[in-house]
Amino acid sequence: MQSMYFTEEHQLFRESLRDFLKKEVVPHIDKWEASGTIETFIWKKFGEMGYFGLATPETYDGLGLDLFYTVIFLEELQKVNSGGFAAAMWAHAYLAMTHLNKNANDAQKKAYLIPSVNGEKIGCLGVTEPFGGSDVAGMRTTAVREGDSYIINGSKTFITNGVYGDYCILAAKTAPSAGNKGISIFIVDLDKEGVSANKLNKLGWRASDTAELAFDNVRIPASSLMGEEGKGFTFIMEAFALERLVMGVNAHARAEWALDYAQQYMSERETFGKSINQYQALRHKFVDLHADMDLCKQYNYGVVYKMGKGEYVVREATISKLKSTEMADKVAYDCLQFLGGYGYIEDYPMARMFRDSRLGPIGGGTSEILKEIIAKIVIDKKEYRMPKE
Amino acid sequence: MQSMYFTEEHQLFRESLRDFLKKEVVPHIDKWEASGTIETFIWKKFGEMGYFGLATPETYDGLGLDLFYTVIFLEELQKVNSGGFAAAMWAHAYLAMTHLNKNANDAQKKAYLIPSVNGEKIGCLGVTEPFGGSDVAGMRTTAVREGDSYIINGSKTFITNGVYGDYCILAAKTAPSAGNKGISIFIVDLDKEGVSANKLNKLGWRASDTAELAFDNVRIPASSLMGEEGKGFTFIMEAFALERLVMGVNAHARAEWALDYAQQYMSERETFGKSINQYQALRHKFVDLHADMDLCKQYNYGVVYKMGKGEYVVREATISKLKSTEMADKVAYDCLQFLGGYGYIEDYPMARMFRDSRLGPIGGGTSEILKEIIAKIVIDKKEYRMPKE
Amino acid sequence: MQSMYFTEEHQLFRESLRDFLKKEVVPHIDKWEASGTIETFIWKKFGEMGYFGLATPETYDGLGLDLFYTVIFLEELQKVNSGGFAAAMWAHAYLAMTHLNKNANDAQKKAYLIPSVNGEKIGCLGVTEPFGGSDVAGMRTTAVREGDSYIINGSKTFITNGVYGDYCILAAKTAPSAGNKGISIFIVDLDKEGVSANKLNKLGWRASDTAELAFDNVRIPASSLMGEEGKGFTFIMEAFALERLVMGVNAHARAEWALDYAQQYMSERETFGKSINQYQALRHKFVDLHADMDLCKQYNYGVVYKMGKGEYVVREATISKLKSTEMADKVAYDCLQFLGGYGYIEDYPMARMFRDSRLGPIGGGTSEILKEIIAKIVIDKKEYRMPKE
Amino acid sequence: MQSMYFTEEHQLFRESLRDFLKKEVVPHIDKWEASGTIETFIWKKFGEMGYFGLATPETYDGLGLDLFYTVIFLEELQKVNSGGFAAAMWAHAYLAMTHLNKNANDAQKKAYLIPSVNGEKIGCLGVTEPFGGSDVAGMRTTAVREGDSYIINGSKTFITNGVYGDYCILAAKTAPSAGNKGISIFIVDLDKEGVSANKLNKLGWRASDTAELAFDNVRIPASSLMGEEGKGFTFIMEAFALERLVMGVNAHARAEWALDYAQQYMSERETFGKSINQYQALRHKFVDLHADMDLCKQYNYGVVYKMGKGEYVVREATISKLKSTEMADKVAYDCLQFLGGYGYIEDYPMARMFRDSRLGPIGGGTSEILKEIIAKIVIDKKEYRMPKE
Ligand SMILES: Cc1cc2nc3c(=O)[nH]c(=O)nc-3n(C[C@H](O)[C@H](O)[C@H](O)COP(=O)(O)OP(=O)(O)OC[C@H]3O[C@@H](n4cnc5c(N)ncnc54)[C@H](O)[C@@H]3O)c2cc1C
Ligand SMILES: Cc1cc2nc3c(=O)[nH]c(=O)nc-3n(C[C@H](O)[C@H](O)[C@H](O)COP(=O)(O)OP(=O)(O)OC[C@H]3O[C@@H](n4cnc5c(N)ncnc54)[C@H](O)[C@@H]3O)c2cc1C
Ligand SMILES: Cc1cc2nc3c(=O)[nH]c(=O)nc-3n(C[C@H](O)[C@H](O)[C@H](O)COP(=O)(O)OP(=O)(O)OC[C@H]3O[C@@H](n4cnc5c(N)ncnc54)[C@H](O)[C@@H]3O)c2cc1C
Ligand SMILES: Cc1cc2nc3c(=O)[nH]c(=O)nc-3n(C[C@H](O)[C@H](O)[C@H](O)COP(=O)(O)OP(=O)(O)OC[C@H]3O[C@@H](n4cnc5c(N)ncnc54)[C@H](O)[C@@H]3O)c2cc1C
Repeated sequence: MQSMYFTEEHQLFRESLRDFLKKEVVPHIDKWEASGTIETFIWKKFGEMGYFGLATPETYDGLGLDLFYTVIFLEELQKVNSGGFAAAMWAHAYLAMTHLNKNANDAQKKAYLIPSVNGEKIGCLGVTEPFGGSDVAGMRTTAVREGDSYIINGSKTFITNGVYGDYCILAAKTAPSAGNKGISIFIVDLDKEGVSANKLNKLGWRASDTAELAFDNVRIPASSLMGEEGKGFTFIMEAFALERLVMGVNAHARAEWALDYAQQYMSERETFGKSINQYQALRHKFVDLHADMDLCKQYNYGVVYKMGKGEYVVREATISKLKSTEMADKVAYDCLQFLGGYGYIEDYPMARMFRDSRLGPIGGGTSEILKEIIAKIVIDKKEYRMPKE
Repeated sequence: MQSMYFTEEHQLFRESLRDFLKKEVVPHIDKWEASGTIETFIWKKFGEMGYFGLATPETYDGLGLDLFYTVIFLEELQKVNSGGFAAAMWAHAYLAMTHLNKNANDAQKKAYLIPSVNGEKIGCLGVTEPFGGSDVAGMRTTAVREGDSYIINGSKTFITNGVYGDYCILAAKTAPSAGNKGISIFIVDLDKEGVSANKLNKLGWRASDTAELAFDNVRIPASSLMGEEGKGFTFIMEAFALERLVMGVNAHARAEWALDYAQQYMSERETFGKSINQYQALRHKFVDLHADMDLCKQYNYGVVYKMGKGEYVVREATISKLKSTEMADKVAYDCLQFLGGYGYIEDYPMARMFRDSRLGPIGGGTSEILKEIIAKIVIDKKEYRMPKE
Repeated sequence: MQSMYFTEEHQLFRESLRDFLKKEVVPHIDKWEASGTIETFIWKKFGEMGYFGLATPETYDGLGLDLFYTVIFLEELQKVNSGGFAAAMWAHAYLAMTHLNKNANDAQKKAYLIPSVNGEKIGCLGVTEPFGGSDVAGMRTTAVREGDSYIINGSKTFITNGVYGDYCILAAKTAPSAGNKGISIFIVDLDKEGVSANKLNKLGWRASDTAELAFDNVRIPASSLMGEEGKGFTFIMEAFALERLVMGVNAHARAEWALDYAQQYMSERETFGKSINQYQALRHKFVDLHADMDLCKQYNYGVVYKMGKGEYVVREATISKLKSTEMADKVAYDCLQFLGGYGYIEDYPMARMFRDSRLGPIGGGTSEILKEIIAKIVIDKKEYRMPKE
Repeated sequence: MQSMYFTEEHQLFRESLRDFLKKEVVPHIDKWEASGTIETFIWKKFGEMGYFGLATPETYDGLGLDLFYTVIFLEELQKVNSGGFAAAMWAHAYLAMTHLNKNANDAQKKAYLIPSVNGEKIGCLGVTEPFGGSDVAGMRTTAVREGDSYIINGSKTFITNGVYGDYCILAAKTAPSAGNKGISIFIVDLDKEGVSANKLNKLGWRASDTAELAFDNVRIPASSLMGEEGKGFTFIMEAFALERLVMGVNAHARAEWALDYAQQYMSERETFGKSINQYQALRHKFVDLHADMDLCKQYNYGVVYKMGKGEYVVREATISKLKSTEMADKVAYDCLQFLGGYGYIEDYPMARMFRDSRLGPIGGGTSEILKEIIAKIVIDKKEYRMPKE
């Protein structure tokens, strides 16, 4: 059903991206997975190719393309089978840069968005804190105005690109007693005095650096504030729809890749004198996974289409992440099983897939929190839309 | 996401159909469910309204509308919550009439298609036999040419509209030794001598009559043959894509209705001083079902869209039925649970829904057989497409 | 693993009971299922055979046998495949009579327990009310002391044996403002003036009568009170462990029966030239169901063993019902599927099994309420044990 | 329900083992997990404590204890939360040593069993080969008799303890054309010329070494043959019941540990001002997992009991592994989820649990192969019992 959404240009873009990844990225993946460090040159190359600027307007060095280019970018990244490498790329381009695109002023865009597009500055998004990531409004990091500066104190955790990144889109409380309404967003250079980062050792996403960040009296210029004080919660909530859709698309793409790999493997592996793709129990399970994947994929494309048209898709984007990440974990589990003992060996791709995929239902809002949100929309008729001014 | 597929005209059609059903059908449903007989007048009314001719060209008294009108017709029928009544209608309009539309010659169309459109003749489709419905090619009913006639012998079972219907689109072997290739399709009047029908007592679909049909030396004119001898298997296989999509659409529609009903119920029912829609465990389950339903619904719309454009969608239509009927059964199960003891009482709608929905994974090809087909397409790269001549 | 629990005497009892059921019960089942009325003679016969007195001491005409006789009684009843007939029998013997056995005084036992053992009086248990069955403490029926009488007002619903039964073990509030502590239990003759019963039309359990009971100024002698005023909630909670275990045992037994039936069917039914028990996908599904059933069965036997030794098994008995009824519904669903179209026909046993089994996760405390209880035990470390006095 | 199976002596053994593990093993685990090497001293200590000889008769330095001591040994090993360390221990004591116990002659027992009991020689079991582990009878490794020797050629893979172990219980074909009947079992010293080992890099079980072993013209004395030529397949099949039960017990034990850990975590973690063990959706999920675990645990104990009594329990032991490992994976998945982001961090225990547990449905016969076996027993009425001679 791709023809409903993808043009020939899209298709050409996909092919050139695929070639690029094969040549420039794939040969380095095992090294980066082992070291937990992505080499700097690749960020530059992505920048040169324009991949970070797909969704950024041309004024700021971007390509200003429709959302299905982003879909292709995400899908092909997943098919490299390094959830961590992909995360580094899309966390920069869609967690950090989305905020710059939407809420930064011209000076901020010149200072951060343009070098982000060009792969010269790497961004991260700092929302989660050690005490209760699900409860965003309960964050404790503070930003206190002092003349022309803000002083940041507090800590963040699980921040993708937080160790090797250059700047952080940071959420902090400017009015701690005001709940949600007291949250503001800042752009903070990570080499500032008082910032320290601790690298976390993770089950998967091993090529990606995930930081625990401490902010100890970090002084930043007042001009680092994005938008106005108190707008942070709204900014975060608005960005979530895209973030979730990104994670939904990632999930269907990696599931599709896993199924393709398993299908190939099963056509070659023999037991009892037959290739294992001839065993009915395996065939039926495979078909079921294939169908589940296709349902998610088509759903996600539909949501992208609507989002691209500017429609309000918080419910759909949340469903997209909820169901697609769950589906992808199931696919990873079962495809690993199709490989028998080889599924358990790290030289075969399913072990990494299994570890990487598991982040899906946790990061960017756990499945439980997504259900809370959908319940509020569907049952309590709550709107997550911005009031039109 | 309806706007992607439905125009304002579609919407108006939906509303007028909904009104019609409310006025003309709903008041009779309980009676028809109890008696297992749908009164004749309603067939006439459907005919007068043009509902049976949505997909029939105007030349034969139809309306020649796009497939999304059919979707609306199917969806609204489901929302009456009588799987049996709906089945009687769509088995006539989409099992029997599809064959007339596609494969009948002009004389046959005049004799059967036009009165079918007008609700004057009710059709059924006779494929399944008592010994192994899944194995269509293994059918045993024979049609032997004798001069200007064929003599039919054999039996069919589980035939929807087979007791009260007027004619049967009957599959029989004209060349028993030729396997698939020996199957032909006939139009047989059910009041012919030698035809006898036995009405089956079913778990659900109780308003619909389901027949065991015996053909004992039934003589029919040779002109009853549709197309050529030996084309039957191909005709049946071609019709299956639409039939499955119909059943997929039905499934998402009844699930949506069940969820709407349950949501209303849960907002009104209280235990321990709270309305039960406030219990998190129920809310999360509800959300999960809602999401599963929405995935199927959007998927089905996409398949309809492609089928309407003439694309080859056997894989997609088969996935549609497989996953949507499974989802609908799960929704029926859980929505019944949301009603507590009242779910178990026939005066409340979930008991009937639960019984009716259960047919989904059986009729029109069991889930296992659908998986066989998808496996052949996806794993063995088999095509179910007609060779272009 | 039966030898761990069942002696040769148990085995002989099972065989004689099985013969009895085959001769005396099975020939009538279809009639009772159709009419919703179990004929009186069979209650008498059960009484004569001593089946109602398995767990009643000999002093009151019972047999005073260990709990595994009860297990056999329940299991064999399920294997008749009429959930409704079985329910009528065990609701009398284990819902109503358990209260008499445990909490009635000698006079009450003479008046009600002895005729219950003998099948002369049929009992029911009246706890659930129309407004919120899950919330037992929220009941609204009142019993107001007036001299030597109590005056009962209120309504009960979903009461098994409530239409054709003779007496009701009725929960009512003697001190409405005292919450749980205000509930008392009475024995109420159902032919008393002011009692009226309405028979409910159910999805399954069709041989069993289920009543909505209204009590309109019903005057009963004060001697009808069981134990003391205010003890009702405790009595009910204490009886629940056995009630749940009964329902757990029922569930594994009907699942085992369904699997046996399906296995036989599958060995005889052929498609594509093979008996369907040779298809790997069906074999693996069957094995999975078999394994799930066996897990529940062995678990339930273990709980019965411990309960028989007088141990506190509220957690285990609740798990037994929760998991076994869920398992049985799954087995019923899939065994119906194994029969293809015949699964949907009421002349074959799976349709009724499917309808009857569905009550399991609702009656006697819904699965959600059972999870609440287990959560309180396992997470909150709450005890449901009676404080030792 | 432990009292049904465990005496006070068992309990004391459990406590002393637990203390031992805490003191001698736990402090080293992270190091061994990181290096993939278990230090030699601990094997000696296990030997000194008698832990390897629980099921070995006293004649060969063992303790000759009943099977519930083995259960305790397995359970407590799991609760160290290093699937790899546990595997090294039980693969030695229950994969390799079971064969020595059952099938070795006195000389072999003196040479291998006694040092195995004492922790001086470490054994492994070599059955699986690179081409199709599920198809044991299809193995290709050969042992050709040459005078007083056998010459071994071929390769094995996935052999636990195969890198650092001292000897291998090796299956090889002495009569390649005779299918199953041509398989024999040998004891092969792993330092023999011609044996080479390659260490595999695994998803989990990282403290355990898993070898790919190549045998290149390895000459072993003819006295290394266990039992007679051609008995190998039977030996393997007989040992499988215990092996599967071991893996079933491991699974319930690690699930129980994961639940305990998660329960503690959930009681301490707060979001939105409540400890997360107060959220109903999490409570219900937890309860469901707890119930599933308890079902498996009680089932497994029952099978151990029967096996201890010498009963034929191939069906039950196979069900035990099938269902318990599946359950454990589900528990690991969901308990990881309960920890939110911390579940994904290797410093918290659930990441390792998640990786380690995944081996359960693969090693020692995949779930699919287990279903094949159960299907043969339950559906085809095949016996896996040795014909009595
Ligand atoms: C590898 C990785 C990368 C990440 N990258 C980023 C990043 O770049 N930027 C960033 O800001 N964050 C990032 N995160 C953080 C992520 O968004 C959080 O981990 C997530 O939101 C959950 O928060 P938590 O870990 O504190 O879990 P908690 O909030 O402590 O939740 C624990 C458990 O309780 C459940 N729970 C909590 N509240 C409720 C409730 N009301 N009802 C029911 N269940 C509830 C949760 O679902 C979860 O199962 C990352 C995390 C990981 C692991
Ligand atoms: C209410 C109702 C209405 C119907 N209406 C019509 C109608 O109008 N016209 C019509 O022609 N038919 C109709 N049918 C028939 C329906 O299409 C068949 O019941 C269905 O195709 C299955 O055939 P069967 O019942 O013979 O099952 P069987 O073919 O006997 O199958 C039994 C079981 O075996 C499984 N099975 C069979 N072969 C395989 C395999 N190779 N691998 C794995 N599993 C396998 C099946 O999935 C099923 O679970 C209707 C059926 C019902 C119940
Ligand atoms: C055929 C039949 C026979 C019966 N026989 C008897 C009998 O002999 N005697 C007798 O006394 N009763 C009997 N019952 C009643 C039965 O015990 C109740 O139906 C049951 O306890 C549920 O109560 P309810 O129907 O009022 O459901 P409700 O309490 O209204 O519950 C509705 C839904 O909300 C859920 N829910 C309620 N509270 C919560 C919560 N706190 N958290 C999460 N979910 C919640 C429930 O699980 C259910 O899904 C019978 C019922 C049936 C159908
Ligand atoms: C960490 C680890 C430790 C191990 N330790 C040992 C050890 O100490 N000693 C030892 O001898 N072995 C050991 N094994 C090997 C293990 O027993 C095998 O991996 C397992 O039996 C599967 O064999 P395979 O990997 O060759 O899978 P394959 O046989 O190639 O199977 C691939 C897939 O096909 C499926 N399949 C195969 N045949 C059928 C069929 N007929 N029908 C349906 N599905 C089928 C399988 O279930 C699997 O999903 C170990 C494995 C691992 C990963």
